[in-house]
Amino acid sequence: MNFQQKMLRDDALKNKNIVVTGGGSGLGKAMTKYFLELGAQVAITSRNLEKLQNTAKELEGETGSKCYAIQCDVRNYDEVEKMKDEAISQMGSVDVLLNNAAGNFISPTERLSTNAFDTIIDIVLKGSKNCTLAFGKHWIDKKEKDKTVLNIVTTYAWTGSAYVVPSATAKAGVLAMTRSLAVEWAKYGIRFNAIAPGPFPTKGAWDRLLPGDLKEKFDLAKKVPLKRVGEHQELANLAAYLVSDFSAYVNGEVITIDGGEWLKGAGQFNLLEEVPEEMWDMLEEMIRKKKNK
Amino acid sequence: MNFQQKMLRDDALKNKNIVVTGGGSGLGKAMTKYFLELGAQVAITSRNLEKLQNTAKELEGETGSKCYAIQCDVRNYDEVEKMKDEAISQMGSVDVLLNNAAGNFISPTERLSTNAFDTIIDIVLKGSKNCTLAFGKHWIDKKEKDKTVLNIVTTYAWTGSAYVVPSATAKAGVLAMTRSLAVEWAKYGIRFNAIAPGPFPTKGAWDRLLPGDLKEKFDLAKKVPLKRVGEHQELANLAAYLVSDFSAYVNGEVITIDGGEWLKGAGQFNLLEEVPEEMWDMLEEMIRKKKNK
Amino acid sequence: MNFQQKMLRDDALKNKNIVVTGGGSGLGKAMTKYFLELGAQVAITSRNLEKLQNTAKELEGETGSKCYAIQCDVRNYDEVEKMKDEAISQMGSVDVLLNNAAGNFISPTERLSTNAFDTIIDIVLKGSKNCTLAFGKHWIDKKEKDKTVLNIVTTYAWTGSAYVVPSATAKAGVLAMTRSLAVEWAKYGIRFNAIAPGPFPTKGAWDRLLPGDLKEKFDLAKKVPLKRVGEHQELANLAAYLVSDFSAYVNGEVITIDGGEWLKGAGQFNLLEEVPEEMWDMLEEMIRKKKNK
Amino acid sequence: MNFQQKMLRDDALKNKNIVVTGGGSGLGKAMTKYFLELGAQVAITSRNLEKLQNTAKELEGETGSKCYAIQCDVRNYDEVEKMKDEAISQMGSVDVLLNNAAGNFISPTERLSTNAFDTIIDIVLKGSKNCTLAFGKHWIDKKEKDKTVLNIVTTYAWTGSAYVVPSATAKAGVLAMTRSLAVEWAKYGIRFNAIAPGPFPTKGAWDRLLPGDLKEKFDLAKKVPLKRVGEHQELANLAAYLVSDFSAYVNGEVITIDGGEWLKGAGQFNLLEEVPEEMWDMLEEMIRKKKNK
Repeated sequence: MNFQQKMLRDDALKNKNIVVTGGGSGLGKAMTKYFLELGAQVAITSRNLEKLQNTAKELEGETGSKCYAIQCDVRNYDEVEKMKDEAISQMGSVDVLLNNAAGNFISPTERLSTNAFDTIIDIVLKGSKNCTLAFGKHWIDKKEKDKTVLNIVTTYAWTGSAYVVPSATAKAGVLAMTRSLAVEWAKYGIRFNAIAPGPFPTKGAWDRLLPGDLKEKFDLAKKVPLKRVGEHQELANLAAYLVSDFSAYVNGEVITIDGGEWLKGAGQFNLLEEVPEEMWDMLEEMIRKKKNK
Repeated sequence: MNFQQKMLRDDALKNKNIVVTGGGSGLGKAMTKYFLELGAQVAITSRNLEKLQNTAKELEGETGSKCYAIQCDVRNYDEVEKMKDEAISQMGSVDVLLNNAAGNFISPTERLSTNAFDTIIDIVLKGSKNCTLAFGKHWIDKKEKDKTVLNIVTTYAWTGSAYVVPSATAKAGVLAMTRSLAVEWAKYGIRFNAIAPGPFPTKGAWDRLLPGDLKEKFDLAKKVPLKRVGEHQELANLAAYLVSDFSAYVNGEVITIDGGEWLKGAGQFNLLEEVPEEMWDMLEEMIRKKKNK
Repeated sequence: MNFQQKMLRDDALKNKNIVVTGGGSGLGKAMTKYFLELGAQVAITSRNLEKLQNTAKELEGETGSKCYAIQCDVRNYDEVEKMKDEAISQMGSVDVLLNNAAGNFISPTERLSTNAFDTIIDIVLKGSKNCTLAFGKHWIDKKEKDKTVLNIVTTYAWTGSAYVVPSATAKAGVLAMTRSLAVEWAKYGIRFNAIAPGPFPTKGAWDRLLPGDLKEKFDLAKKVPLKRVGEHQELANLAAYLVSDFSAYVNGEVITIDGGEWLKGAGQFNLLEEVPEEMWDMLEEMIRKKKNK
Repeated sequence: MNFQQKMLRDDALKNKNIVVTGGGSGLGKAMTKYFLELGAQVAITSRNLEKLQNTAKELEGETGSKCYAIQCDVRNYDEVEKMKDEAISQMGSVDVLLNNAAGNFISPTERLSTNAFDTIIDIVLKGSKNCTLAFGKHWIDKKEKDKTVLNIVTTYAWTGSAYVVPSATAKAGVLAMTRSLAVEWAKYGIRFNAIAPGPFPTKGAWDRLLPGDLKEKFDLAKKVPLKRVGEHQELANLAAYLVSDFSAYVNGEVITIDGGEWLKGAGQFNLLEEVPEEMWDMLEEMIRKKKNK
């Protein structure tokens, strides 16, 4: 199977204007690229303007669609308001907000300062909230309809996870915001969904997250029933579906795309995978004998 | 927005051979039609051969793809084995099993006989299990890979629901089977997912389910944040994604497509939707005055 | 800490008449014993009358309360009706039904016959349904109130689990029945809850479930954050709470008591527990140096 | 039934030193009172020292146990550290942290300022995090074991809810923190659980939350299958269980105590409760006639 295939029909996102926070690199960049290929205009944001501008230029060259670079620290509501105004002034309007900007670090929680913990809450939870409030208030005020917000969370937003507790905490907040506003703002024509990706390694982020030997030692692919990590296009396919009108009846949903990783850990007897076939043969034989006695 | 649009690229399911149980009418028929349009061959099954044959003929005429009609009562394992053999003999092989056959009736549970309850468990849970075992054992035995099982459940498989308790019970079983085998059979190249549809009315089934005045009295669209029921093509788009290779990294997942219906009921303060704007204005005024004191 | 301590005040279950299916051994026996100690009368049921009678006698001797032994195969609705009549005739009435009877075996699913799979569904799901219908219809018909049904499920009723798929499937059905009837039958004064126990080994059942070397090889305590399996009294404490009037506002809930086992498997980065302290020291040092550059 | 009954055996919390944030009024006060009755020492905290001192005095008078009043704004980490030091200096040590302090207001989300939203995140999420970090680091540093953290969340931490979105968001974060640290800090002998209460009205908080006519108009008891709101002692019973050693094997769990409220809203056909018996009779008759044709 070729996991790089692109699924939506051509021009599926034509006339869609999309803002992707954290769109300068990694998964945000991969989703942005596919949106552009499908005919959307995209404004990407992050704190690092130079990197953004390089990405925008590169993606415009590859796709032939318009990609705008807007500097913004999502923690700061005033900057978010300005970013919103600039996105609207450049693209004419905004149809989709993709809250993808995030921060994370792996550490035993007792080694974290209270400030380090706060930083992740501020970027992930308050950042997503700031963008959602800014665009949402604008759409409601202007009576614009058919809008969509897509939030990128994680599988551990629901199950929790050790060693990434600030991120688990913040992402869970984003998940609850998704479900709450999917109900509350439906009357204004705004839809909310989320994606919970499993292991989709990206050069920068995963190297920072699992530095040194950790990456070799903890091969996340082993934990996945499918025995592989995800390809960026696979996430981009799902994201494109969820920002498109094709998913218009999906609302308040969080879709997990992790190859079954979290379930494999969660199920009580899944570890019996390590039992060899011969042992199962022996056990069957034992049971058969007992019955025949 | 036009909810009848078809999302996947042409020929997205070319070379896929699909079995759809309960494919003769309703949602099963709608999904089958879209699979055929995307280039798949489909075998549809149910107890009523004449109806199946009419549907198959109709869909072949509309799509130009091959559609086979195979009689089968999924409660009977021997019939399921025969159906599997016939599907393979007609299509050469089977790549996708869509467990869609179901039964349901609305009734206070204390009015149900134990036999009536058992009938639903037998059709929904044992039926899905029978088909899964028959095809799964075959694929594993023949070492065939890249297979997918898609199960149609309901939102109340997870939350439960009064007045449809046998169905809730049986569908919950199917959901657990989906998650269990997504992990266990991943090593054999078999993927499992489920869809939990909200209100997608179909002429036959919903008339039977909500007879007489009930249908008028209980307008399910009102419970949906989006204030409408789903269009069959919207479900077909999601199903086509999940049986296609584009979703290859989605495994063990149940995707809800209900416009946010279950969330609207579940959230504690969602009923405040009925508060008029003027009342919110007054409340704000009250709070402002208190603060200024 | 001493995990054998008993929590409820004396006579907390005085005047409660309780039926415990599968009460002759294992966890059913442990819960029964504690109910008797708290002043309840209990009727225990299973297929093996002799074993039941021995248990009843033993527990009466230890506790001084009345314990009745009633033979019943819960798969057979007529037997369940008779069991209900006998329980009522012996205890005067029944206040609590504890659906604890179960069957399970560990096996790769592709090695199971369809009949073996059906047997587990019949015992666990249809058995619980049979008892619930028989007692529920009786209580509703006689307009008796303040009744409680407690169902024993598992953590994998929700997450699914490989190698115990029939049990996962059937227990998920019981869980959905719990939630459905908690809502539907509340108006008749019947409350429903469930317990999802993690590893509480019992001599008989666990030896059968993990025969031969499996038990040594797969030490379930290792998967539990608390690094121990549960004590029977800990489960009995929770069960006594849930069948008592003290939990009168808990309804439709499933309480997990597993030391955190399922969460430990589920969280994406929980496996980093194996990182030694020195490695965390080194990582911190690395990050500090980078910052100071 | 009398819902005021107290369930645990006398002295069940003897030798337990407990900190209850937000313990000066409402549910925090109710739980504190029961802990004191069971023999615990309790330190209650909030911003309002005078109110705290009055409560402490009142509860000491009623229970004969020691209750300490410590002023603390949980949003401020330095204050939390001081509160921790004072609690330890007064009680000798702390065994249990109950994160109960909260803030909430009901409002359409588009009417909220970004600062109002932040305030709730800061009190609920950062406040719980601050207390957890302060006590957790202390326990880990001093190698103290057998500690418990209990967090009060809500049912909409999981489902989300309109009109209380900041609270839903923040409480979801607390829930994920509960599950994450239940796994991570188990090795240090610290257990984490949460309670999700449904409607337990308290004079102050609910009047503020549902001012004016709202309280009459939106009778939350109607949404509960049991047709009543909860009694404070019922919540106190559950909380006492979870902070006691009797629940030592419950870890990472959130227990819902809401009479089935959220489930009643969530299940798709639960609204059929409004169908009168005569209509069910008619429907049965209709179906019977059809069958006999």
